[in-house]
Amino acid sequence: MSESLASTSGKYRLIRTIRVRNDNVPGVLGALASAIGRVDASIGNIQMVHLGQHHVVRDIEIMVFDDEHLKKVLQEISDTRGVSVLEVRDEVLDLHRGGKIKVVSAQPINSIDRLRKVYTPGVADVCRTIREDLEQRNLYTCIPNLIAIVTDGTRVLGLGNMGPWPAMPVMEGKAALLSEMVGVSGIPILLDTTDPDETVRTVKHISLTFGGIHLEDIASPRCFEVSEKLSRELDIPVMHDDQDGTAAVVLAAVFKACRIVGVELKNMSIGQVGLGASGMGIAQLVQHYTGNPVLGTDLAEERMRHLESRGGRRSTLAEIMAKADIVIATTGVRGLIPPQMVRKGQVILALSNPEPEIEPAVALEHGAALAADGRSVNNLLGYPGIWRGALDSRAARITREMLLAASRALVEIGKPDEILPFALDREVHRAVAQAVARAAIDGGVARRALDEDYFETGVTRTSSLPS
Amino acid sequence: MSESLASTSGKYRLIRTIRVRNDNVPGVLGALASAIGRVDASIGNIQMVHLGQHHVVRDIEIMVFDDEHLKKVLQEISDTRGVSVLEVRDEVLDLHRGGKIKVVSAQPINSIDRLRKVYTPGVADVCRTIREDLEQRNLYTCIPNLIAIVTDGTRVLGLGNMGPWPAMPVMEGKAALLSEMVGVSGIPILLDTTDPDETVRTVKHISLTFGGIHLEDIASPRCFEVSEKLSRELDIPVMHDDQDGTAAVVLAAVFKACRIVGVELKNMSIGQVGLGASGMGIAQLVQHYTGNPVLGTDLAEERMRHLESRGGRRSTLAEIMAKADIVIATTGVRGLIPPQMVRKGQVILALSNPEPEIEPAVALEHGAALAADGRSVNNLLGYPGIWRGALDSRAARITREMLLAASRALVEIGKPDEILPFALDREVHRAVAQAVARAAIDGGVARRALDEDYFETGVTRTSSLPS
Repeated sequence: MSESLASTSGKYRLIRTIRVRNDNVPGVLGALASAIGRVDASIGNIQMVHLGQHHVVRDIEIMVFDDEHLKKVLQEISDTRGVSVLEVRDEVLDLHRGGKIKVVSAQPINSIDRLRKVYTPGVADVCRTIREDLEQRNLYTCIPNLIAIVTDGTRVLGLGNMGPWPAMPVMEGKAALLSEMVGVSGIPILLDTTDPDETVRTVKHISLTFGGIHLEDIASPRCFEVSEKLSRELDIPVMHDDQDGTAAVVLAAVFKACRIVGVELKNMSIGQVGLGASGMGIAQLVQHYTGNPVLGTDLAEERMRHLESRGGRRSTLAEIMAKADIVIATTGVRGLIPPQMVRKGQVILALSNPEPEIEPAVALEHGAALAADGRSVNNLLGYPGIWRGALDSRAARITREMLLAASRALVEIGKPDEILPFALDREVHRAVAQAVARAAIDGGVARRALDEDYFETGVTRTSSLPS
Repeated sequence: MSESLASTSGKYRLIRTIRVRNDNVPGVLGALASAIGRVDASIGNIQMVHLGQHHVVRDIEIMVFDDEHLKKVLQEISDTRGVSVLEVRDEVLDLHRGGKIKVVSAQPINSIDRLRKVYTPGVADVCRTIREDLEQRNLYTCIPNLIAIVTDGTRVLGLGNMGPWPAMPVMEGKAALLSEMVGVSGIPILLDTTDPDETVRTVKHISLTFGGIHLEDIASPRCFEVSEKLSRELDIPVMHDDQDGTAAVVLAAVFKACRIVGVELKNMSIGQVGLGASGMGIAQLVQHYTGNPVLGTDLAEERMRHLESRGGRRSTLAEIMAKADIVIATTGVRGLIPPQMVRKGQVILALSNPEPEIEPAVALEHGAALAADGRSVNNLLGYPGIWRGALDSRAARITREMLLAASRALVEIGKPDEILPFALDREVHRAVAQAVARAAIDGGVARRALDEDYFETGVTRTSSLPS
């Protein structure tokens, strides 16, 4: 049932669990499911709660557009003969109760002997060891495995400027996935300032704590200034996930699309619709790889100039649809691309979440050779492996070559017929980490030698990829 | 064997594990242990590694003064007939390898269904819920259970100004113990500035992330300015552990000493030797309780004036030893108090770690009614329960009454004959948390109602004390 939820279209924004009591006679569940389908809602998990002689109680997970839609669905269910609604629960909210991450001790502290070794007086010796050779912090503290996930909440998901507190669930989600996928410790840092200089100054002041800085959901164009300044001033990697991580994943999708369609990316004309953080990150990584300018467009004149200053070409939606072989859209505007603009053989990646610029099925109907939306181009495929590889090789920064290495690894490890691999597959993240670490070493930014074991097993002395 | 390590004097600074091969004949281990004792080293755990026909291999944990002493011990062992040293290991360093804390997901993320609930698209609903009512962050994020453990590394343990990186093992130890004892998530923040204004500014900019700010190992007098300014400007609790947490624990020891000796604290004259962060914190909490000035002394004139400005009385070591009924020393100077100055019936708490101002045994020999050093007045008894109680009651700040409530709880839960309870006993931390939360409610600084269940079981809806 989970798969069915995953493959439903992005149009559903709410997930609710409805507890219903049905008469225990054949056909009632069928009538109920049909009622839900009739009003355009989607069904997820169905779980039996109670089976009595006369009644059956079930929890039915449904996906709906919004609260209005939910009301309609509940009405339709209540109107079904033999069915009554007992309660409506929000299991998504329940799953977030108490937060999604915690800081824990790496080992139990359950004896006075252990206490004296990890705390006073034992710890003093470790402090002295680090004072005598500051490099030892990489061996005896969690610093090289700890990254700050920094946001000011000015561009949360596709939801816009919500402020720092409402951004926290996203930051915790990123940290939870970093831990689950690659064993990196990520800690959210919510900033109460949106001033770029103040942001840079604050992050610099706390940067000694971390092995890397992950910027998240900071609005453009501020994000460019912040990430460029921090990269310049810190000697640990700085990654703005919306620019860098997303670009690596999107480029993997582009590589794979070219392979599936049977064309050579370097010969293709590429159009980027939307020049926010993601769009600019994608355009720059594509240009770095192909050596050719990307056609780009955005409603904001400032962003168009920014693209030109980075070697791209100012264009329009109509021109891009008419000329580009590959169209990438990251505008956040549902249905922006009119189906009739799609040309035969085009590759269309309409990536806005939860609602794409054009539904992949519609693009294919209108002649696209390949079409995908944000659900199959999940940015979870990028940042965990990129961070694992950057931290393991102790990279001074994250280079474009490292991002491209991540893209290539995602293509190589995927199955021939899927645009990108499954995002919860730890083998995928391991492959990305190894490729990124290798690129860091080859590019001369690694500050730590990794032996061949690392590239065979992904295991290093102080950190390891969970298997 | 662990107990023997715990009760050895503070004079041992190094713990090492020696692997030895003994001839398998009776009496060799005895000769070996005697050799170690002869050169004044102490033995901890002994573990059998291999038992052969002719030889026995054992790992023997020893405590020594320093590297010089270690050499002497190894020589003495090697000179013992039938014994050879195979290797010397530093298990304290080994225990710190890779760091002592990690950030983890509160729940496994192992299905696409779960992923879609904790990450996109499900998380968007949680973000919107918080945007509509910012108070909901306390329900759906880890913020109310997360504290920043902030240091600039200017006063690390008794080791002085080491800088931020060498301080990290101490910060991680604090965080590990917070998690283990009370389930609070603490994250170290190392500052690269020692300027008070810059420190305040930086902590303020990141403070939305946290339910509280724990300042640690910041040198005086800067720490006073920083903690006072932050307390004033933030509406979450700010605690400087060296001032506030330590004061609560020391006052518990003072309360208990008075109970054991059979005197009334309010009638006693109290002397505070050393007016750094801890000394000032203790002096102020004592004065708050007794309503009488404390006699205080320090080499630094600035600190003496600081004491006077807070209602204390300037004194000298000789005057304090001659007049005070209770003497508390926090100078970091080993052996500062000449034994002949001790008066009959005095209570002496010589708290500097690892080496006290006077050994308790020596003070007792010279007539003290009760004497203790830093090992029995462990500040681990304070901060975990204080934080748990402050966070659970969502206190706006940590008041002196809350610190006193912690002190009283430590006295009440202890056994009659011990100065303070066992620091790894979770029941102790739970009792402190409940007392602190109660004091927050009674003092009008709590922003959350706790029902009677909390005070019976220590369990709240969104956070719970591990049992």
